Amino acid sequence: MKLAHFILLVLIFAFSHAISGQNLRSPDGNLSFDFSLSGTGEPTYKLSYKGKPVLAASRIGFELKGQPALLGGFTAVDTKRAEKDEAWNPVWGEVKTIRNHYRELAVTLQQTVAVDEKGNVHPNADVFSSAANSNAKRLTRQIVLRFRLFDDGLGFRCEFPVQNDLKYFTLADEKTEFNLTGDHKTFWIPGDYDSNEFVYTTSKLSEIDATIGKAADEIAFRTPIAANAVQTPLMMKTADGRYINIHEAALVNYPAMYMMVDRKTFGMTSHLAPNAVGSAAFLQTPARTPWRTVIVSDKATDILASKLILNLNEPTKIEDTSWIKPQKMIGVWWELHVNRSSWNYSDVNNIILADTDWSKMKPNGRHGANTANVKRYIDFAAKNGIDGVLVEGWNVGWEDWFGNWKEDVFDFVTPYPDFDVKELQRYAVSKEVKLIMHHETSGSATNYERRLDEAFRFMKANSYDAVKTGYVGKIVPRGEFHDGQWMINHYNHVAAKAAAYKIMIDPHEPVRPTGLSRTFPNWLASEAARGNEFNAWSSGNPPEHETILPFTRLMGGPMDYTPGIFEIKMSHYDPKKKEQVHTTLAKQLALYVTMFSPLQMAADLPENYEKRIDAFQFIRDVAVDWDDTRIVEAEPGDFVTIARKAKGRDEWYVGAITDENARTTTVPLDFLTPGREYVATVYTDAADAHWEKNPMAYKIMSQNVNGRAVLKLSLAPGGGAAVSIKLRR
Amino acid sequence: MKLAHFILLVLIFAFSHAISGQNLRSPDGNLSFDFSLSGTGEPTYKLSYKGKPVLAASRIGFELKGQPALLGGFTAVDTKRAEKDEAWNPVWGEVKTIRNHYRELAVTLQQTVAVDEKGNVHPNADVFSSAANSNAKRLTRQIVLRFRLFDDGLGFRCEFPVQNDLKYFTLADEKTEFNLTGDHKTFWIPGDYDSNEFVYTTSKLSEIDATIGKAADEIAFRTPIAANAVQTPLMMKTADGRYINIHEAALVNYPAMYMMVDRKTFGMTSHLAPNAVGSAAFLQTPARTPWRTVIVSDKATDILASKLILNLNEPTKIEDTSWIKPQKMIGVWWELHVNRSSWNYSDVNNIILADTDWSKMKPNGRHGANTANVKRYIDFAAKNGIDGVLVEGWNVGWEDWFGNWKEDVFDFVTPYPDFDVKELQRYAVSKEVKLIMHHETSGSATNYERRLDEAFRFMKANSYDAVKTGYVGKIVPRGEFHDGQWMINHYNHVAAKAAAYKIMIDPHEPVRPTGLSRTFPNWLASEAARGNEFNAWSSGNPPEHETILPFTRLMGGPMDYTPGIFEIKMSHYDPKKKEQVHTTLAKQLALYVTMFSPLQMAADLPENYEKRIDAFQFIRDVAVDWDDTRIVEAEPGDFVTIARKAKGRDEWYVGAITDENARTTTVPLDFLTPGREYVATVYTDAADAHWEKNPMAYKIMSQNVNGRAVLKLSLAPGGGAAVSIKLRR
Repeated sequence: MKLAHFILLVLIFAFSHAISGQNLRSPDGNLSFDFSLSGTGEPTYKLSYKGKPVLAASRIGFELKGQPALLGGFTAVDTKRAEKDEAWNPVWGEVKTIRNHYRELAVTLQQTVAVDEKGNVHPNADVFSSAANSNAKRLTRQIVLRFRLFDDGLGFRCEFPVQNDLKYFTLADEKTEFNLTGDHKTFWIPGDYDSNEFVYTTSKLSEIDATIGKAADEIAFRTPIAANAVQTPLMMKTADGRYINIHEAALVNYPAMYMMVDRKTFGMTSHLAPNAVGSAAFLQTPARTPWRTVIVSDKATDILASKLILNLNEPTKIEDTSWIKPQKMIGVWWELHVNRSSWNYSDVNNIILADTDWSKMKPNGRHGANTANVKRYIDFAAKNGIDGVLVEGWNVGWEDWFGNWKEDVFDFVTPYPDFDVKELQRYAVSKEVKLIMHHETSGSATNYERRLDEAFRFMKANSYDAVKTGYVGKIVPRGEFHDGQWMINHYNHVAAKAAAYKIMIDPHEPVRPTGLSRTFPNWLASEAARGNEFNAWSSGNPPEHETILPFTRLMGGPMDYTPGIFEIKMSHYDPKKKEQVHTTLAKQLALYVTMFSPLQMAADLPENYEKRIDAFQFIRDVAVDWDDTRIVEAEPGDFVTIARKAKGRDEWYVGAITDENARTTTVPLDFLTPGREYVATVYTDAADAHWEKNPMAYKIMSQNVNGRAVLKLSLAPGGGAAVSIKLRR
Repeated sequence: MKLAHFILLVLIFAFSHAISGQNLRSPDGNLSFDFSLSGTGEPTYKLSYKGKPVLAASRIGFELKGQPALLGGFTAVDTKRAEKDEAWNPVWGEVKTIRNHYRELAVTLQQTVAVDEKGNVHPNADVFSSAANSNAKRLTRQIVLRFRLFDDGLGFRCEFPVQNDLKYFTLADEKTEFNLTGDHKTFWIPGDYDSNEFVYTTSKLSEIDATIGKAADEIAFRTPIAANAVQTPLMMKTADGRYINIHEAALVNYPAMYMMVDRKTFGMTSHLAPNAVGSAAFLQTPARTPWRTVIVSDKATDILASKLILNLNEPTKIEDTSWIKPQKMIGVWWELHVNRSSWNYSDVNNIILADTDWSKMKPNGRHGANTANVKRYIDFAAKNGIDGVLVEGWNVGWEDWFGNWKEDVFDFVTPYPDFDVKELQRYAVSKEVKLIMHHETSGSATNYERRLDEAFRFMKANSYDAVKTGYVGKIVPRGEFHDGQWMINHYNHVAAKAAAYKIMIDPHEPVRPTGLSRTFPNWLASEAARGNEFNAWSSGNPPEHETILPFTRLMGGPMDYTPGIFEIKMSHYDPKKKEQVHTTLAKQLALYVTMFSPLQMAADLPENYEKRIDAFQFIRDVAVDWDDTRIVEAEPGDFVTIARKAKGRDEWYVGAITDENARTTTVPLDFLTPGREYVATVYTDAADAHWEKNPMAYKIMSQNVNGRAVLKLSLAPGGGAAVSIKLRR
């Protein structure tokens, strides 16, 4: 076959595919998906729900560096269909068993381009059929687009198989479209290469303006992208009441994805976090993108119940998971944020780690992580059934740790002179409490990786088996970003290495999660959003904040939000302070249920809990791992009510929260085992409670209930209710 | 005191110093040094030798990023003088005891500038005495210039003390001048951020053209700087016979320095290797530059005998150095370079380390690092008193290790299926031979640091206590260079971590050394120049190469040059090959003496040594650590003759080498202990030997000698002679 004939055949083949698209329907038939190639060979997909469009024709493609783009000129050379329906049990989670049911379409696309000696597309498309082909060579490349359609949404990714013309390649950016069909109400935070710690804005797509400064109040370090850039998970609601959530699953060896919003057309195009050398990703075949996820329903509760993102992650490779323990912790932590004590031992600044003799430093007298104080926390934990005690500020370096793009900030193994590692090990073991390690990196990931083995060995030698890590600051390697490929690999490396040491992790200020806790179940939680701490020293989190987080940040995985603040107003610590938590006390309790995490902090000070030990009883009781979860009602920005059954126990917990508006909610207890009798203890806002005016007024009532009962809960403005339901004895 | 008065006083003070300079004379009076401030407050120094200028007035200064420069406007606020004369014993070295004798001048300079809100110098110098000072603030910064004048040269550095207006700062570049006074003959290689593996060019300063391509033949990866950029150590000879060597000592937490040559004025200005974010160095006070060194003599032999660079390095902090052992090694190495076997086990390419099942790979049948072959080397080492056996290609990843800016290239702990770690450990221990580890990083330093603890623990568990590391390729973190601050810190980190594990190191392709083996005596040697291996597969190293290296690369420390090639012509392995070593066999022997290293490889194959076991006897005998060294005669580019006394033994070794010209050299043996009788065994070129035409013709003669004898050695073109002198029994 002559070359010209071959090209002709390919074109005919391409054309035939351009007009005959592929369709997929979800198992329940509600979602319909179409794939086709445009007239110019651009891979294009569409999604509709119950007959109405969710995504109009949207293209998938990639810009490469030093190679022609993988955007168009494709022909389909293979198509495979599959269906899977299986169930799996997570190591921990919101439910005991997760169903993974999807229909799959995998389309192999091929593109042949002529390139000149510099790798650019040759200007003469007919180069191989003409004589003018001296400097040109043919590049034939294949990609596989894999689509999985579930009842609750779509997941798709691009795979780059091993092939002669695509071995190593550099992505300049990904240009995958999510073309929405209307000016939806959107719950968004600004796209940023380094932070997710923003207040959410609710606006129409057309009104997105990511330059808004207020939403970024008190964020330590951030790198805005553009006025039309937003983070995922991105939550939207259409005018006719459909809910759409866009995110990604299984972010591995690839940069995080942002949405660049066309505020006129409502189209969105992916953008990837860049690296230090002006590209986005270094890849080697076989390679694949993370799954791009579009979760859709006409019920907001379905969005929260979706397990699509977990289903698209790889099962864990950890064989023995017996050491992974969902748990509650308290910690030398909130006292640092309310300025009762300090992370730093001394008040000098300008420390050089290797040259400092800590025993000769003058203590400032305010150091929180001292042996006596930590013992106080251990005592409280032991007395109240709290599993762990986190201690921040135990290790040297806090005098000079932030803001100078410094590399050797901490060594993770040297305690301050007043923190007796061995004595605290002995004491914690004697009280059957686990100390929880803290590794702040200050963003210096190279320093952390360099010292990681030593740090983990130190942990194991001193009976620590969980670590909260931190990434506050500009990243080292310098030029990289929190959300770039290098750091993605870093977070995953730390998770894998921790697993090898049987260590559980809880990263703060990392990239937002994408369901990787399925693959790394030792990755209990992450921060990666605006946590409760912002209420201590910034304009804080508005009352609606916790009603949005489950629809956005938490779609990717558990958050260490650090609920449980009982002393709501910071004026308690300093009359001059105007900061406060923007909830009632009862709502703080409800968060233990509405904000799923297998690692929950009881964030307030022991003395504050001791003053209200009746309310603290809920935190003592509430589970952190669940057999079942019912999303009772939910509306992003307004309210969330969830009921969960404790793992392995016939015991339920209900959390209900509202935004700045008071609300009455009813919870039918039909999930209770028929024929059994229970006692429900209701922790709720007092009648005159109000997040701002009277936040700490709560009441506790007990009543006998069974499966026929309906709870009626009255929530104050910015309030909530928490209910424990235990078998009657 | 009012502000305006203060400024006036400072100006007067400055002026008084600008006219009254400071002078230092070397202890022997030959060197004279002057420091002064120019009329505009620029720190300026001059150096002369025996009354003739070496360096004309040369400025010292720094460009900063985000802050005004530290170039001029200085006043001297303090001056201190000191003298030191001490002796110290290196852990290993060319001599048993080193004298450290210098006179020191330390000048504290202060600069006050007005800066605007952006940190730029305020345009109105009188801002503080006028009303227009609203946006300006005063910045007062001090630096200390420390000069040490030895009999053999000058060392100086800049220190940045802790101070309010200089805590963290970013260097854009260093602008320190070395203004030579004539168009000297110069032995140079191109300035390059990533390589030192060049052939030396000898030219006048005015003729330097670093774009010369031939000198770079077969260098795997390099990043040229500019046509007028050259590497240090830079060796020069003046028209009237003085020798000048410029380099640096104690390169710690700072980028490597290059010389930018003004080919018209013969002035040279420093330039620093940049980092990934467009600056040169991130520093925090107290900080200091490495020492800038200028070694001067009218005898070339004094240059080689100088210990100035070692004297300017910090003493070691390693308390127990008993585990540090100078040694000889052979290795599965040259057979790889001559293509008798391969590093890689399989011939596939495109490997992803984590996803590859090596047991299922198809072996190529040529893998050098297989158990049986390594045992063959162990046997040879045991039989011939060689301490160690290096094995390259033992670990998985070599199928796909170079050229793709890949990060996860090697894991440093997984052997190929045919390399039995435990059996080889057992076998080597039984033969009292040490296996030497090999860690090629492919330039991916992050990957190496991440795995370093595990790699070192693997070594110790398998009885390895020395490692040859390698840095072939583009650096990861991407955007960094081999010679940049980040990599400098990496090399030093590896040295320190290795010391903690009692591991000796031998980095290949690192920055060129600066005497840090004093501080890290486990850092036995480095490559960092064009080694013998280039003779196997490139145009090679011209016959003069080894007469230049001691004056250039070796000024900073020992080189693992891998001498001892007996099969000179590569046609031995493949009749088609034209490559060859550009020396005679006898010269290969002489290199063990002329090219000091406490780690010396006998680089050729065991079978090649067995064929000429009489010549190999010299390699068996020669020491690698010395009580005394006499530089008998030397001329860069022409010849070097050195005699050394073995550590702790009354045994001397002489090496004499020449360039492409034949040469007769006489060596008076007056260094021998008076009254004692010795046997000298002379390994020298046969009468008709010639590096190209007849390189392997050698002869061995023994004669009785004593301290009154004079050896006469005839060296062929490209030839050499090696002599062992042992006590007569």
